[in-house]
Amino acid sequence: MAKFLTNRDENYAQWYNDLVIKAELAENSAVRGCMVIKPYGYAIWEKIQAQLDSMFKATGHVNAYFPLFIPKSFFSKEAKHVEGFAKECAIVTHYRLKADPDGKGVIVDPAAKLEEELIVRPTSETIIWNSYKNWIHSYRDLPILINQWGNVVRWEMRTRLFLRTSEFLWQEGHTAHATREEAIEETVKMINVYSEFAENYMALPVIKGYKSETERFAGAVDTYAIEALMQDGKALQAGTSHFLGQNFAKAFDVQFTDKTGKLDYVWATSWGLSTRMIGALIMAHADNHGLVLPPRLAPIHVVIIPIYKNAEQMGSISVAAKKIKADLEATGLTVKYDDRDNNKPGWKFADYELKGVPVRIAIGPRDIENGTVEIARRDTLEKETVRMDIAVKHITALLEDIQKNIFKKASEFKKENTRYVDTWEDFVNILDNEGGFLMAHWDGTPETEEKIKEETKATIRCIPFDSPEEDGKCILTGKPSKRRVLFARSY
Amino acid sequence: MAKFLTNRDENYAQWYNDLVIKAELAENSAVRGCMVIKPYGYAIWEKIQAQLDSMFKATGHVNAYFPLFIPKSFFSKEAKHVEGFAKECAIVTHYRLKADPDGKGVIVDPAAKLEEELIVRPTSETIIWNSYKNWIHSYRDLPILINQWGNVVRWEMRTRLFLRTSEFLWQEGHTAHATREEAIEETVKMINVYSEFAENYMALPVIKGYKSETERFAGAVDTYAIEALMQDGKALQAGTSHFLGQNFAKAFDVQFTDKTGKLDYVWATSWGLSTRMIGALIMAHADNHGLVLPPRLAPIHVVIIPIYKNAEQMGSISVAAKKIKADLEATGLTVKYDDRDNNKPGWKFADYELKGVPVRIAIGPRDIENGTVEIARRDTLEKETVRMDIAVKHITALLEDIQKNIFKKASEFKKENTRYVDTWEDFVNILDNEGGFLMAHWDGTPETEEKIKEETKATIRCIPFDSPEEDGKCILTGKPSKRRVLFARSY
Repeated sequence: MAKFLTNRDENYAQWYNDLVIKAELAENSAVRGCMVIKPYGYAIWEKIQAQLDSMFKATGHVNAYFPLFIPKSFFSKEAKHVEGFAKECAIVTHYRLKADPDGKGVIVDPAAKLEEELIVRPTSETIIWNSYKNWIHSYRDLPILINQWGNVVRWEMRTRLFLRTSEFLWQEGHTAHATREEAIEETVKMINVYSEFAENYMALPVIKGYKSETERFAGAVDTYAIEALMQDGKALQAGTSHFLGQNFAKAFDVQFTDKTGKLDYVWATSWGLSTRMIGALIMAHADNHGLVLPPRLAPIHVVIIPIYKNAEQMGSISVAAKKIKADLEATGLTVKYDDRDNNKPGWKFADYELKGVPVRIAIGPRDIENGTVEIARRDTLEKETVRMDIAVKHITALLEDIQKNIFKKASEFKKENTRYVDTWEDFVNILDNEGGFLMAHWDGTPETEEKIKEETKATIRCIPFDSPEEDGKCILTGKPSKRRVLFARSY
Repeated sequence: MAKFLTNRDENYAQWYNDLVIKAELAENSAVRGCMVIKPYGYAIWEKIQAQLDSMFKATGHVNAYFPLFIPKSFFSKEAKHVEGFAKECAIVTHYRLKADPDGKGVIVDPAAKLEEELIVRPTSETIIWNSYKNWIHSYRDLPILINQWGNVVRWEMRTRLFLRTSEFLWQEGHTAHATREEAIEETVKMINVYSEFAENYMALPVIKGYKSETERFAGAVDTYAIEALMQDGKALQAGTSHFLGQNFAKAFDVQFTDKTGKLDYVWATSWGLSTRMIGALIMAHADNHGLVLPPRLAPIHVVIIPIYKNAEQMGSISVAAKKIKADLEATGLTVKYDDRDNNKPGWKFADYELKGVPVRIAIGPRDIENGTVEIARRDTLEKETVRMDIAVKHITALLEDIQKNIFKKASEFKKENTRYVDTWEDFVNILDNEGGFLMAHWDGTPETEEKIKEETKATIRCIPFDSPEEDGKCILTGKPSKRRVLFARSY
């Protein structure tokens, strides 16, 4: 199957696109910038959803659903918010089509113009806070800890499957609190949920930190992000959690009576993670053979492929295969037995490698004789022969090991590609030749940040939570700096 | 809590609306016709989703996701389809806002007009079949058995929470087959999945049947529906499964090579069930005390309420309550122990009755002395005292009994309110005085159907699959008829 993929080291962008298409994860649709998420890609999203949803619920959140449309006037209420999203909105202006009097087909009925235009939500702060206004009166109504699963639209000019699409699927949490401290605690809690999810499920090591003012969410007081490193040395923002202060409460006049009887504005957070994560999963782990899925997010954990020359062989192989399948399924794993006879084993091997199935079992006539199976792991492509009677136990442990190994490999890659840089020359050279994460000093001004971006295309990905205080000089201006920040070119 | 609800027998419509609001299921939003589904209402939807999703997967379906937007030109490709949906579409015409040069706020940027308008999907046949065109070449690519969970928009003029909203959540299955027979088999299979779901999970007896031509889905060759009877004697269509023939394959030119090498158009089905079902759940089972949820779809199965006068009593009650809670949860049930001290037990009793929690446990000081608990069932409001050591076993059986009893009650109601009518006078009288399902003869013409609708507001809900052949005369025209059909006024 490798022959169908562009070589990763020759053209990373093309390799990525090939892989998304060939592994049948997604494809472009007839609607500009909108993708079709195909069943195999969607199955990964379902795994992501199920895990995140259980983590949200374990931290006290409940799901709800708010309208797809936002009245235009709501949008203007928070000044920075509208500034951030106005340029990339899908706008509904009419509510009816009619037959074209001049020909075939239909036209927009000019008589069905909306009094106020509706924006297809790019994010739901405004429509949600307009509801919260009616829900919150007293401190007894707080906190509100709500999450929403849904679709959003941001009219992107340059789109890429999963990474940047005009419509995408995501979850957005929107919480309301009585105190600043509690809201900040929630913001931190959720960036920790995201990083735990990224590291333990996606096998993706991340750096947690604050966004600079320029990179903050439109309307936030503070944005925390997790940043991951892709195999081409570019960074990818993998989840964000925003402390919104009282900005939206003020914009929508949401006040509550506190325990002492005093009126105050409500404190807010929001946090989101999207189908973009599937892009991260691919870019972080996949190779020239295809996807490498961490077992905890793999739609199929184990595939069993029979190797046979005749019906008699196939008979005894099928008996053994079905027993192993049932035994593996009894432990909670998802197993596919591919006994289709229209493709050769070699073709199937390549196809499941392309699809990133973590473990492959092959069973041939000699295995039946010897009471063995051949087990191949997708991450290292290593094969071994294992006794049939211990295969289930072996595979359970192997899947754990694969999960750990994919994370270890990505962690080592990140470590090797995180560089402490002190001069402008090194900064530029490393960006051009090696890429990766650059820990460097910055004078703290948006002007310098902007200039660095213009000259190098690198942005401040975050100010890591764990970046220690350290006297240094800004790589561009030489002005004093108190801590290093994380620079990278990014998706 | 009953005091907050309008009496069901005095004003059914107001009772319904009160209940949706007071039980915190949903509310109207600031966007015309769009509702906010609140956490408790959404939790019911999550239960519906989980059950249906597992039934879809058990019947070989997989999930995928297609764009929210449909290019206007796609819409016109299937003539009846566009006719059916053109009058109630949300239409995106622009993709950018800009600052209002004359004042505050933002306006639609006239420079950002789309070349072709986009329709917010009212249903996804057209955008999906445009994709299937690229996926299907040979019989080997068939069948395609895909379902999508998502939101759709139909610009309804008169809306009602859950029952008819401009945006609603649903699932839509879209399958492609090599033969007519296989597509019909799928259409039947899915209406059976819906009726099994309605009866075994929603405790809602339904009548399965064909829609008349007038009531068919726009673009379908045949529509099968399940029809349920609400407590006010009106019918509610609870799920539909459409045999689309080759209509969409022809509209989008989707052909495949069959086993003999011959080119043919692909056969299609689609089927959907929406958040409307939550409306059905309420209207079929709820009473003047509030919701009555069938245990299999209840977000909370059991609530435990302590009855105490002082901290000492509360101490021993809490120990007992927490043990029962843990024991019930170990059997897979969802249990809430409501030990909030800001509300009296009586208030809590009423609140959980309003919310339809199937079983309530009350534990007071005397229960602790006697080693008992008081158990109340929501469906009949009956109470009994049960020994603590057998409470878990008792409740497990009780929940089964409640599920069965709710179905039984609804079945009896349906039976009592299904009437065989042979004269126009009876037809009109029964509709006006009793409502319910009317099994009557019809001459089979759309003209008569339309006239009956005009005169009585009753429509043909379906031609039941099990309606036997029987010579009769149309209730309106007296012309000959071969079988009775199901009439009712409906939501």
